Amino acid sequence: MESVYCKMELHPQRPNSLPLFSLLLLLVLPHALASINIISEGIRYMHSEILKDEAVARLIELGKVSDADGFLERTFQSPASVTAGNLIRSWMEDAGLHTWVDQMGNVHGRTEGMNPNEKTLLIGSHLDTVIDAGMFDGALGIITALSALKVFKSNGMLGELKRPVEVIAFSDEEGVRFQSTFLGSAAIAGVLPVSTLHVHDKSGVTVQEALRKNSIEITEESLLQLKYDPESVWGYIEVHIEQGPVLETLGLPLGIVKGIAGQTRLRVTVKGSQGHAGTVPMTMRRDPMSAAAELILLLESLCKNPEDYLSYDDHCTPSSVQSLAGSLVCTVGEISTWPSASNVIPGQVTFTVDIRAMDDLGREAVIYDLSSRMYRICDKRSVQCLIERKHDANGVACDHELSSQLRYAAYSAHDRISDEKPDDVPILMSGAGHDAMAMSHLTKVAMLFVRCRGGVSHSPEEHVSDDDVWAAGFAVLTFLGTLV
Amino acid sequence: MESVYCKMELHPQRPNSLPLFSLLLLLVLPHALASINIISEGIRYMHSEILKDEAVARLIELGKVSDADGFLERTFQSPASVTAGNLIRSWMEDAGLHTWVDQMGNVHGRTEGMNPNEKTLLIGSHLDTVIDAGMFDGALGIITALSALKVFKSNGMLGELKRPVEVIAFSDEEGVRFQSTFLGSAAIAGVLPVSTLHVHDKSGVTVQEALRKNSIEITEESLLQLKYDPESVWGYIEVHIEQGPVLETLGLPLGIVKGIAGQTRLRVTVKGSQGHAGTVPMTMRRDPMSAAAELILLLESLCKNPEDYLSYDDHCTPSSVQSLAGSLVCTVGEISTWPSASNVIPGQVTFTVDIRAMDDLGREAVIYDLSSRMYRICDKRSVQCLIERKHDANGVACDHELSSQLRYAAYSAHDRISDEKPDDVPILMSGAGHDAMAMSHLTKVAMLFVRCRGGVSHSPEEHVSDDDVWAAGFAVLTFLGTLV
Repeated sequence: MESVYCKMELHPQRPNSLPLFSLLLLLVLPHALASINIISEGIRYMHSEILKDEAVARLIELGKVSDADGFLERTFQSPASVTAGNLIRSWMEDAGLHTWVDQMGNVHGRTEGMNPNEKTLLIGSHLDTVIDAGMFDGALGIITALSALKVFKSNGMLGELKRPVEVIAFSDEEGVRFQSTFLGSAAIAGVLPVSTLHVHDKSGVTVQEALRKNSIEITEESLLQLKYDPESVWGYIEVHIEQGPVLETLGLPLGIVKGIAGQTRLRVTVKGSQGHAGTVPMTMRRDPMSAAAELILLLESLCKNPEDYLSYDDHCTPSSVQSLAGSLVCTVGEISTWPSASNVIPGQVTFTVDIRAMDDLGREAVIYDLSSRMYRICDKRSVQCLIERKHDANGVACDHELSSQLRYAAYSAHDRISDEKPDDVPILMSGAGHDAMAMSHLTKVAMLFVRCRGGVSHSPEEHVSDDDVWAAGFAVLTFLGTLV
Repeated sequence: MESVYCKMELHPQRPNSLPLFSLLLLLVLPHALASINIISEGIRYMHSEILKDEAVARLIELGKVSDADGFLERTFQSPASVTAGNLIRSWMEDAGLHTWVDQMGNVHGRTEGMNPNEKTLLIGSHLDTVIDAGMFDGALGIITALSALKVFKSNGMLGELKRPVEVIAFSDEEGVRFQSTFLGSAAIAGVLPVSTLHVHDKSGVTVQEALRKNSIEITEESLLQLKYDPESVWGYIEVHIEQGPVLETLGLPLGIVKGIAGQTRLRVTVKGSQGHAGTVPMTMRRDPMSAAAELILLLESLCKNPEDYLSYDDHCTPSSVQSLAGSLVCTVGEISTWPSASNVIPGQVTFTVDIRAMDDLGREAVIYDLSSRMYRICDKRSVQCLIERKHDANGVACDHELSSQLRYAAYSAHDRISDEKPDDVPILMSGAGHDAMAMSHLTKVAMLFVRCRGGVSHSPEEHVSDDDVWAAGFAVLTFLGTLV
C-alpha cells in the first residue's frame, strides 16, 4: 500500500489531448457563432453592458454581503449567506428564470427552453466563502451564468434553447462551518450521507438546526429526495477562478480543466500532560505543543520532498514519485490549544491537515507514510496522537466531449474579446476542489478556469480583471449558443 | 550581553542558609507556642474544625464558583470573580475583620489589633484562576489566613495582636484575561503602570471598562492612590501550593521559599502569504504555520539544552550555564492562525512564549539568543517575525528575617500536626510567579509552600490533602501567635 500508485499527467497541456476539439471547431463553432451573431450585431463589444459592466457591479455588490465587519465571510446558512441567496435569486428572476430554494439552501433558477422533457444542462457554483475571502471565488461562476442567460432573455431567445438550463448557486463548497465540503452539490448529486445533518459546528449547532433557524425543515428522508435523477440531466459545467498562476503565466484569460485533484482533510489531536508553565522541568514535560510543532514540520518536509520518504515497488518508479511531488500540497490551516493560556503547558493541541494531489493512490501513500511517522514521533515524546480522516474526495476527470464544447466557447471568447490571440485554449489541472467533484457522481462535468491576479485566492487580494469577467461570460454565452 | 549572567543556587536547600532560624527557634518559638496553647488546650488536634474541616469545605465551595460549565475558570472581574470576591468578603467578616473592595477589585479584610498605628502585616493571595484550573492555586492562601484569624477571633484574641493584620484577596495574578499579571498586587505595591487601565482583552474590553461593568470607577489618578505607604507596612507573607514536586519527594507538607524565578512573556507574530491550500505549490509558499512550528521546536531545544546554544565569556562559565539549565523552563501555551480555516494557508500565526529562570541575567541571555535565532529562521523562510515582550518580572529574593519567622511556624506545624517528623523545614525556589513578586516592591516578603499531589497545578488534577491544608493553617496561626 505504501507507494502503490500510478503515474498521471500533472502539467497543463497544449491541444491535441481533446481530439473532438478540432472537429467541433469545424462543425459546431460556425453555428454557435451565428447564433450569437443573431443575438447581437456588435461583435467586438458585444453585450459588454451585461457581460462586463453589470457582472462586475454584481460581483462587487455580492462581495459586500458579509457576516464580518471589514472582511468577507459567508458560511453555510449564516445571515449573510441567506442575504446573498436572496440577491442571487433576484438576479435569476431578472434573467427570466423561475426560482426556488431547496432544503439544503441551494438557490435554483431554471428555464425550460423549447423541450422541457429534454435532459437538463446544469450550470453551478457556490455562494459561500472562506473567512477573509476574495469576491470572485464561487460568485464568478454564478454571475457569469446569469449574465449569459440574461443576454438570451434580453434577445427573447430563452425559449429557443434546445434543452432546459438550470443555474444552481450551491449553499456550501468551502466547508468552513461544518468542516465537511460540498454540502450543497453533494446533496444534489446524491452523495451526501444523511448523517451529515447531525454534524455540528464549533458552537454545537447541527446542519439540520442551522437550516431550521432559517425556516428550512429537512429530514434524512427529504435529503435523499434532493438527489437529481441522472436520466434527467445532460451535463454540468462550472466557471471558476483558476486560483493558481498558470493562466497568468501563459498570458491568457481562460483555460479548460482536465481534472481536479483529490483531497483529504485530517484532524490531528495530540494529548499530553497539562501543567504549570513555571514548575514542570523541561525534561519532565509531555508537551503536546512541541509535539504538534514536530508533526507540522514533518508534514511540510514530506510534502515538499515525498521522494525522500516514500519507498518504491514494482508499481511505483522514482519518476512517478517525482511526478507526485509536482502536484502534492499540504496545509495546516487551523490549530488550537487547550486550555489556551500563556502560563499553562497545554493538555491538548488540535490541528487540521489538508492534503491534495492529482493522483489518488499517491495521496493515499502520503497519508499512510505520514500517519506512521506521526505516531512514531508521538510515541517517542510520550504523548497520545489521534489522526482522524474528516473528508476524502478522489480526483475527478472532466468529460472529453463537454470539455471540447466548452473549449471552443473559450476559444471564441479569446478570439472575440481578448487582446491576446492564442492559437489554442490551454488545458489545466485543478489543485482546488470544486462542486464539479460532487456533481461528477451525477453526470458528466466540464470546467472553465478564469485567470486571477498572481494566482491568489482565499484572500482579499483575489482579483479578476473586468475584461476577463467579460471573456468568461462570453464563453458561457457561446456555449449556450450551441444549444440554440 | 549574550551570556553575561551570574551563577545562582538553584536547588532546594537544607537549613543553615537562614542563620536566624536557630536563634528564633530558641527565643521566639516557646513564646509563640505558649500563645497558641493559650488559644487552645488541644495540642494534637487543635482547631481542626476551623483550620481543616471548614477550610477544606470553603476550598470546595470556592472551587465551584466558575464562569464555565464543567471546569473552573475565574478571570479578572468576570461574573464568577465578583461572586468569589463576595464570598471571600463574607468569610473575612466571619473572621471578625472589617472589609472593603478597592478600585482594582481587590478584596480586603483588616483587624487593627492593639496598636492601630503600628506597621501592618499583610497576608495575601489571589482569587482569580487560569482556565480549567484547580481549586487550591490562590484560594489556599486566602482561606488559610482567614481560618487562622477566625481561630483568634473565636478565642477573643483579635484585639491582642501587637500590630494590624490585613488579608488581601488579589483580583488578578494569573493574567489570563489581559495578558498582564499581578493587576491586583501591583496596584497595591504601586508598580502597575497607569497605562494598564487601557489594555484590552480579546473582545476589546479594557481593564477600566471591565471594572466599570461591575460599578467600580477607576481613573489613572485613583489607581496611583491605591499604592500603600511603605512606612505603614511591616511585611507581607503568602501561603501557596508548591506547584512542583519537591515537597512530595521529600515527604513533607510545608516548605519555605527562598526566592521566586524571574519570568518574561513574549508574543511572537509570524506573517506570511495567505493563499488557497490547493493551488500554491509547496516551493512557492511563505507559510507562517510551518515557520511557527520551527520556532517552537527551536524554543524547546534551546530551553532543554542552553549549553548547546549560549556562548561563554569571562563572567559565564560552563557550570553557570549548566546551572541555568536546571531552572530554565519555556512554554508555548497559546497559538492561533488567521484566518483559521483548514483549506487556507494562514496569512498569520501568533503564539505566546513564557520563559522563566531563577537567574535574571541568564533569562536575558536566553531571550537574546532565542530572538536572534528566530529572526534568522524567519528570514530564511521569507516570512516576517515580530517578537514583543509583553511582561517581565525579575526574580525576587525573600526576606531572611521574615522567612525565619515563617519557617519556625512551619516547623511547629510539622511538629504538631504532620505524621512526618522532619529535622527541619526545607527551603525551596519557586518556578511559578506569585503576588509576593509584586509586593516585594513595597515591603519585605516571605512565602510558605504547601505540598500538592504530583506537583500538578493549573489543572483540575491539582490536589492538597486535608491534613496539609490544616498544617498550612496551623503555620499561619503560629506565625500570628508571634504577634501576640
